[in-house]
Amino acid sequence: MEQINNIQVVPCTSSNYLKPFRVLYSQNGTKKSWDFMRTHDSVSVLIFNTTSHCFILVKQFRPAVYMCEWEKNHPTPAEEKGSEAATVPEEEEEKGVAENHDHLPPASAGVTYELCAGIVDKPHLSLEEIARQEVLEECGYDVPVTKLRRITSYRSGVGVTGAKQTMFYLEVSDENCVGEGGGEPQEGELIEVIKVPLQEAMNFAYDENIPKTMGVIFSFIWFHNNMSPKYKISTNV
Amino acid sequence: MEQINNIQVVPCTSSNYLKPFRVLYSQNGTKKSWDFMRTHDSVSVLIFNTTSHCFILVKQFRPAVYMCEWEKNHPTPAEEKGSEAATVPEEEEEKGVAENHDHLPPASAGVTYELCAGIVDKPHLSLEEIARQEVLEECGYDVPVTKLRRITSYRSGVGVTGAKQTMFYLEVSDENCVGEGGGEPQEGELIEVIKVPLQEAMNFAYDENIPKTMGVIFSFIWFHNNMSPKYKISTNV
Repeated sequence: MEQINNIQVVPCTSSNYLKPFRVLYSQNGTKKSWDFMRTHDSVSVLIFNTTSHCFILVKQFRPAVYMCEWEKNHPTPAEEKGSEAATVPEEEEEKGVAENHDHLPPASAGVTYELCAGIVDKPHLSLEEIARQEVLEECGYDVPVTKLRRITSYRSGVGVTGAKQTMFYLEVSDENCVGEGGGEPQEGELIEVIKVPLQEAMNFAYDENIPKTMGVIFSFIWFHNNMSPKYKISTNV
Repeated sequence: MEQINNIQVVPCTSSNYLKPFRVLYSQNGTKKSWDFMRTHDSVSVLIFNTTSHCFILVKQFRPAVYMCEWEKNHPTPAEEKGSEAATVPEEEEEKGVAENHDHLPPASAGVTYELCAGIVDKPHLSLEEIARQEVLEECGYDVPVTKLRRITSYRSGVGVTGAKQTMFYLEVSDENCVGEGGGEPQEGELIEVIKVPLQEAMNFAYDENIPKTMGVIFSFIWFHNNMSPKYKISTNV
């Protein structure tokens, strides 16, 4: 699907996306400290197309996932040099502490299947309105906000970010399809819209060869348990 | 449960836990960059006690979750001053850019229910052996590694860490209970072991007033679907 090459890893002393903070506090009188990152809450949407009886997922290259696989086959140069990310000299950062042109994992090692999702960064919009916009931008379906059904919410990344994620269920039809989706290319999004037929959903969910988020697995099973009176779903799992 | 006070938030220019890196790469010929964090893969375990017909969860205060709630009621001082985490002067860091002694959310705002879990940081141990150790340390049950049944694996934090999480199912009995669990206090862990009766599990899973991870919800439903021939579970959801 994608061609990935010219990989360079450099320390990141200042990021617009990852901002570590430290909280100092007393817990039952004992002084403690914890490093965490500020992040946004998020929404995700299980989309079911009632015309084709398919789930609509997004598939994209995730650099962080790819780097996990890349690093399994490579030493971690910054640590080998005994230098922290934040203390590597600037000239070191510029030339890059890791560079590799061969033995790269295939791009597919960084590709994941996910629910349509987005961060909650517009205070004037409801969670449902943000979810509706993501469905339109990423998957090309234009639906009224009232069609979104809340499934549940939970905490993610409890060690680092602790943000709240809210999951919705949404039924769409081919008539709601107004575009190809694919995200916002100007924001660097390269999203492929994928259809998973209802009859294959449970095998898809538990096939560990298909890289995916827990949200995909959980929501497919939620559908199986809650929508089965309405739509027939097969399961051999 | 916990008393939390004397909260101070300071920038975190160098952390042993959060190490941002930047990867530069070419995707289909287009140069891109992405900030990510190195992290460990992890394991989690759905524990079912066959003596008491209860699920065994862990409950703990999560500073990152607490800070999410804290910040919903407070401005973010570092950003107000227009300063990045990495560029706040050292004297600013020392006195702390945010301090608050009143209007604190209750400690319960940072408490979450989670599966017993741990990071994969011992290369000589299998995932099952790491999971077994976590069950002993956090929950006090000593079981042979062969009793662990793999449920599935998936990617977490795909935007930032992309680590692989593997989930196991484990049946224990009161006879396997050799201690109180509670984690490693010398590592700052303050973990409470919680029992959720089987009959309450599905309501627990979908009660949004009970803060929890998606792993708890997914695994309870997995149990419902896969263990129901063996153990009866009620559901009104």
